[in-house]
Amino acid sequence: MPAAKRRQIHLNAFLRNVGQHEAAWRLPETDVSAVTDIEHYRRLARLAEKAKLDAIFFADHPVLKDRSQDRPWDSLDPFTLIAALSGVTERIGLVATASTTYNDPYGIARRFATLDHVSRGRAAWNVVTTANAEAAANFGFEHHPDPDARYGRAAEFLDVAFGLWDSWNDDAIVGDKAGGVFVDPDRIDRLDHAGPHFRVAGPLEIPRSPQGRPVIFQAGSSEPGKELAARYAEAIFTAQPVLDEAQGFYADIKSRVRAHGRDPDKVLILPGLSFFIGGTEAEARALQDTFENLTLPTYGLAQLARITGIDFSNHDLDAVVRVPAREQGGNQKSRHDLVHHLTATETLTLRQLLRRLSAGRGHRIATGTPEQVAATIVEWFGNGAADGFNLIPPALPSSLESFVTEVLPILRSQGLFREDYEGTTLREHLGLDRPSKARRVAAGFAAAAE
Amino acid sequence: MPAAKRRQIHLNAFLRNVGQHEAAWRLPETDVSAVTDIEHYRRLARLAEKAKLDAIFFADHPVLKDRSQDRPWDSLDPFTLIAALSGVTERIGLVATASTTYNDPYGIARRFATLDHVSRGRAAWNVVTTANAEAAANFGFEHHPDPDARYGRAAEFLDVAFGLWDSWNDDAIVGDKAGGVFVDPDRIDRLDHAGPHFRVAGPLEIPRSPQGRPVIFQAGSSEPGKELAARYAEAIFTAQPVLDEAQGFYADIKSRVRAHGRDPDKVLILPGLSFFIGGTEAEARALQDTFENLTLPTYGLAQLARITGIDFSNHDLDAVVRVPAREQGGNQKSRHDLVHHLTATETLTLRQLLRRLSAGRGHRIATGTPEQVAATIVEWFGNGAADGFNLIPPALPSSLESFVTEVLPILRSQGLFREDYEGTTLREHLGLDRPSKARRVAAGFAAAAE
Repeated sequence: MPAAKRRQIHLNAFLRNVGQHEAAWRLPETDVSAVTDIEHYRRLARLAEKAKLDAIFFADHPVLKDRSQDRPWDSLDPFTLIAALSGVTERIGLVATASTTYNDPYGIARRFATLDHVSRGRAAWNVVTTANAEAAANFGFEHHPDPDARYGRAAEFLDVAFGLWDSWNDDAIVGDKAGGVFVDPDRIDRLDHAGPHFRVAGPLEIPRSPQGRPVIFQAGSSEPGKELAARYAEAIFTAQPVLDEAQGFYADIKSRVRAHGRDPDKVLILPGLSFFIGGTEAEARALQDTFENLTLPTYGLAQLARITGIDFSNHDLDAVVRVPAREQGGNQKSRHDLVHHLTATETLTLRQLLRRLSAGRGHRIATGTPEQVAATIVEWFGNGAADGFNLIPPALPSSLESFVTEVLPILRSQGLFREDYEGTTLREHLGLDRPSKARRVAAGFAAAAE
Repeated sequence: MPAAKRRQIHLNAFLRNVGQHEAAWRLPETDVSAVTDIEHYRRLARLAEKAKLDAIFFADHPVLKDRSQDRPWDSLDPFTLIAALSGVTERIGLVATASTTYNDPYGIARRFATLDHVSRGRAAWNVVTTANAEAAANFGFEHHPDPDARYGRAAEFLDVAFGLWDSWNDDAIVGDKAGGVFVDPDRIDRLDHAGPHFRVAGPLEIPRSPQGRPVIFQAGSSEPGKELAARYAEAIFTAQPVLDEAQGFYADIKSRVRAHGRDPDKVLILPGLSFFIGGTEAEARALQDTFENLTLPTYGLAQLARITGIDFSNHDLDAVVRVPAREQGGNQKSRHDLVHHLTATETLTLRQLLRRLSAGRGHRIATGTPEQVAATIVEWFGNGAADGFNLIPPALPSSLESFVTEVLPILRSQGLFREDYEGTTLREHLGLDRPSKARRVAAGFAAAAE
């Protein structure tokens, strides 16, 4: 290992059933039963681990999405799935998304603390407030709360979770068999949190976990989302299709992190990256065409309506389309802006627009040779746009296999990506410190309980 | 296989960190760090699977129990732990306890449906309403709800969960690549449940799981607990220290099951069984003494106070004690009756009582040679007291190893316990049918969504 090692790119594999692309399931190679087949996910996890990626990553959609007839969506609970995968992997990080809107903090804190124990320090929680308004009806809510309400709850949720994870001092377990003292209750702190959203006594019943607490990922690029990230997140998953905007986002977040008194080098920005890799650029474009030729307009129209709030289903698919600029607000702000920008700067039929949107869904797309894909990564990494990427394979396992086989060696040859894991925990993979336990003013568990 | 196979005993392993006995952690052989060590649980799961037990079983305590200094308690979330163990086992059933009081039905339904998928049909949910009142303060409740309120919620919770698990027809995934139809939305039903405790729209986003739905275990022997069991449970975990009372419980439950129009042979009654096994009866008693000599009176007194509501800490440990009969109610009804009965029929000092209670905590204890332990099992199984047992090893792994090595061969020689698994799902191990999907009056997902 060289004395002054180069800054390293961080790469996660975003695993969505048979691939992120809406048409992946229609490829001849795809086994549609893989959607709920644990063996499929085991193969993907092992492939990612063999490639020494930082982590595997699962999204969360606690609702059956509309147009479910057109494509497979996330059909398994991501936390349960990743807990199961902890048993068949040894080193790779495990990032599961979970909602602060539709969970309670004690339940989340104990599940993720346990995941950190059973994976021996590989757990991360991707904190979301859930964008899909239909989820509300599965949890007894009249309406999906608005973003301010969701993010207010999220911040308090994280305060509670952090407090619970800090219940036990690392040396709380004494294990004095002769003296009959299993733990020292003075080294376990109650929480006694009482806030607008939650009242949680604590302590957590779980000893402090290998990473101190799970790594906190955050996804969501609205204003309150960025503020939440700046205060709590250690890695940020964001959709950034264009370099200069990605640079702006990167600079904005790092500056907000600094403003909160945190070290910006310890908050990693990881845009999504989808890719179509070919031996030549033409082959890569042909591969992308293969996917796009299999898209279903019904699905694309539903997505477009979700992004823009506008129903284009009566618009001729082969007529030129213009998407109006966004008014204030909207749940899919950056995606709406992107679609507007596309149709304002290019002449696209509705069919062409739907095809174009299918590839990245708002994420950066790299289509080309392995060298071209690697060059995009290095360009963003070297120019203040990314500390790494959430790789979003259009089809699984094939696209991930291509990336691992063809692109990773190029990054390795430039000394930008690890040859092997150096640590055993996800924090070590990501270059993040193990947090020390916050000292609580309140007395210990024993004292407070008496 | 004989044409008319004998009725088979069902055996689960109840796994509580280093053992159920409060003093197990103080044995010289015990590694106290095993409490949070996944490798410890993997060894136990593999041991149980190699022995062809029906299932492993984890309790749930979403709160740090009092007197945590005196013994390790359940220090990991049982669901997360068992999901992780699904990855290192292939056939054994996986029973995780979870509370209907401190969870929401959509979250529970999706987690257990996913566990059933990732384990390929080995998931079971042990439904409890949580006896430990202190848990309330971790979930924002002013007070732990009383039993009637808890069981009212539990029944509606199960109705919702069953409805969600029945969202998808088994043939809902069409997978027609050419026609572009992934699922038939007319084969997915919304739930649209609206009741006093829950409003849940559904459908679940998860295809119907291998077992149709997870096996439902139930624990809790109060009047409303028995009624819940009779309506919903497929296996019942109960504390029954005495044969004739166990027979009464067994007959009572089977008759209630019949009254609900269900088949009593498809509702298994599995009392807890703790055991101390020795080469001779004297060796077995000496082994039990070893555990009891290591008990801590502080812990026993706290348990006694919890059971009886009476503080005996000022009572001389070496003076004879009498525990008054129970008045109406009480959370630990059968355990209070047991303690009262013990001190009414035997002359016991407080110290002797605490030692006696430490062994079984209200469960049947078998202390003796392998033949004697096997005889107890056969006696209960053959005389209308049990369809099998939840084995409660005092120390782990040693007590489970003894049982597997010494007692199981005796049961096998009598044709009462399987030589190998015949099926792949827990339902098959337990002789339970895969439930057919309930037909819903409501229209399908597509229709209702339009």
